[in-house]
Amino acid sequence: MIPTIRWKGRCVYMIDQRKLPHKVQWFVCKTYQDVIKGISHMVIRGAPAIGVAAAMGLALGAESIKTRSYHAFKEAFLAIAEEMLKARPTAVNLKWAVDKMTRRVEEMSTSPVKDIQQALKTESEKILKDDIEINRLIGKNGLKLIPKGASILTHCNAGALATGGYGTALGVIRAAHEAGKKITILADETRPWLQGLRLTSFELMREGIPVYVIADNAAGFFMKGKRVDLVVTGADRIAANGDVANKIGTYQVAVLAKENKIPFYVAAPLSTIDRTIKTGEGIPVEQRDPKEISFIGKKEIGPHGVNALNPAFDITPAKYITAIITEHGVIQKPYGKAIKRLFSLA
Amino acid sequence: MIPTIRWKGRCVYMIDQRKLPHKVQWFVCKTYQDVIKGISHMVIRGAPAIGVAAAMGLALGAESIKTRSYHAFKEAFLAIAEEMLKARPTAVNLKWAVDKMTRRVEEMSTSPVKDIQQALKTESEKILKDDIEINRLIGKNGLKLIPKGASILTHCNAGALATGGYGTALGVIRAAHEAGKKITILADETRPWLQGLRLTSFELMREGIPVYVIADNAAGFFMKGKRVDLVVTGADRIAANGDVANKIGTYQVAVLAKENKIPFYVAAPLSTIDRTIKTGEGIPVEQRDPKEISFIGKKEIGPHGVNALNPAFDITPAKYITAIITEHGVIQKPYGKAIKRLFSLA
Repeated sequence: MIPTIRWKGRCVYMIDQRKLPHKVQWFVCKTYQDVIKGISHMVIRGAPAIGVAAAMGLALGAESIKTRSYHAFKEAFLAIAEEMLKARPTAVNLKWAVDKMTRRVEEMSTSPVKDIQQALKTESEKILKDDIEINRLIGKNGLKLIPKGASILTHCNAGALATGGYGTALGVIRAAHEAGKKITILADETRPWLQGLRLTSFELMREGIPVYVIADNAAGFFMKGKRVDLVVTGADRIAANGDVANKIGTYQVAVLAKENKIPFYVAAPLSTIDRTIKTGEGIPVEQRDPKEISFIGKKEIGPHGVNALNPAFDITPAKYITAIITEHGVIQKPYGKAIKRLFSLA
Repeated sequence: MIPTIRWKGRCVYMIDQRKLPHKVQWFVCKTYQDVIKGISHMVIRGAPAIGVAAAMGLALGAESIKTRSYHAFKEAFLAIAEEMLKARPTAVNLKWAVDKMTRRVEEMSTSPVKDIQQALKTESEKILKDDIEINRLIGKNGLKLIPKGASILTHCNAGALATGGYGTALGVIRAAHEAGKKITILADETRPWLQGLRLTSFELMREGIPVYVIADNAAGFFMKGKRVDLVVTGADRIAANGDVANKIGTYQVAVLAKENKIPFYVAAPLSTIDRTIKTGEGIPVEQRDPKEISFIGKKEIGPHGVNALNPAFDITPAKYITAIITEHGVIQKPYGKAIKRLFSLA
């Protein structure tokens, strides 16, 4: 499996996901600003992967702070953390990682700055390693929801490339495949970035998991035609009541699943649950450049100067979600209560 | 307005819709085979436009038949008609036009062949002229359904380019604009062919009707956010019970409209209603080349050799349709009865 992101010496290497599947090219980050650019320009995407990248970016930023004073260091670190938080607004894992790294700085207030710098790099490595482990647990926990021979629809890419490795939704799919369940995947192509066409099918083909890409427009056609047994997607942020922010189009898939009486599952780590936000209405939805709609690559497809609207995420109300698969187990409605219990166990 | 299709001397000229909006280029048909190619390769598309093209193609084919015997002529004509019927399977207007032209041949069994040939060309011109007139009536009839200041979502292109001119769904939109209703359009980009991005926005921009293109994935987002007051689409075939075959993705839009309590209208001429088919299940759905998903233009976007499924149409059950707007008036549920009445008036 191609690693999504890793340390190499003093640099952070990210696979450039804008170039996949035709070019496997590294995007090298020498500074935390490079990491911010990588996140905001979608070199790396997917909520858990953004969390890992933010942690590594902060470790890079910390290393660049030239002082021996803890207070000066902390002040500079917090300024970098502020910048990092603005890279993308919707995935809460970014904030989760920034908070985790900031706590590490606060815990080490009596340590020499160079020790803190080293500890932050180690922490970022741990976040990466833990994320992969968490995905494997999500996969294992999701297994029981996948019937033998199931045809599974997924939206966007919640795979190895969206995480430290293995994937959340694709983690469940990988686990089912590894368990010999003989599943088949329908992958929504996922406009405008085509993560389903470019990334999900690429990941699954490499592992010999049967996959068919479909236009986002065809998801309902296949559901109505009884060619989808269940849906599983990732999440970018889950509110305290179980409302889910995820890639634009997820809400539609959930409504269609309900209309066709098909289970709709969300697979996500606890780091994606934002208990500070009561409902999906409080989740900020990123609006991206309209050119992502009217251009494909550098080629203008639409009429010159056409207006477009390009929300990158939508909110799926909890009522449409059959279950949420986490590393600590599978939860069901009412999600408010289930999420509270989950965190008390974690 | 750019004419979609027209006679020029002994040739049929179609605007090449694969090249729009960046190139305005004519596709010249010297033979009926050229017309079949134009239809099946989507040089021309949209159910009513396909009907007009088929009629002109048959007139071209008729002219090429070298005989003075009516029986020999009719036999050759019917063979051409058979070929024409296979150009694309879903839009019934093709069959409607072939039947109309065939009736003309049958009516003239005592006329010299060259008179029949001339009459067929005239008939095809009349079909074009009538289609534009019918669209204007559809627009006029639809007017009462459009509130002032409405935000209207449309899917695919049911515009001038999908018809002889003026359009069905866009006919209603044009009429509302001409009546000073100050409407705004959200146009689904409509993968995989991007008719919404390339054609609908192009048509509306030329007439100064405010239009925003959105990814098909975002239709639900805008409906849920109360930014869509109504939906209007065209149709490729309507069964006797009111089930509607239309561009892939239409079913999803209809389900989302129902879920969000938004009226969903279909605008289509009577020639799109196929009373020989009881329900949508009887309508053949064209499956097109999977490369239309994995390539954009000549550029491969997906992994090399990726599997894709590419149904070009879907069926929207009548229960999701608030009303059907025709040239003979607006009909509502139960459609079986309403359609019968409509044809008794026509």
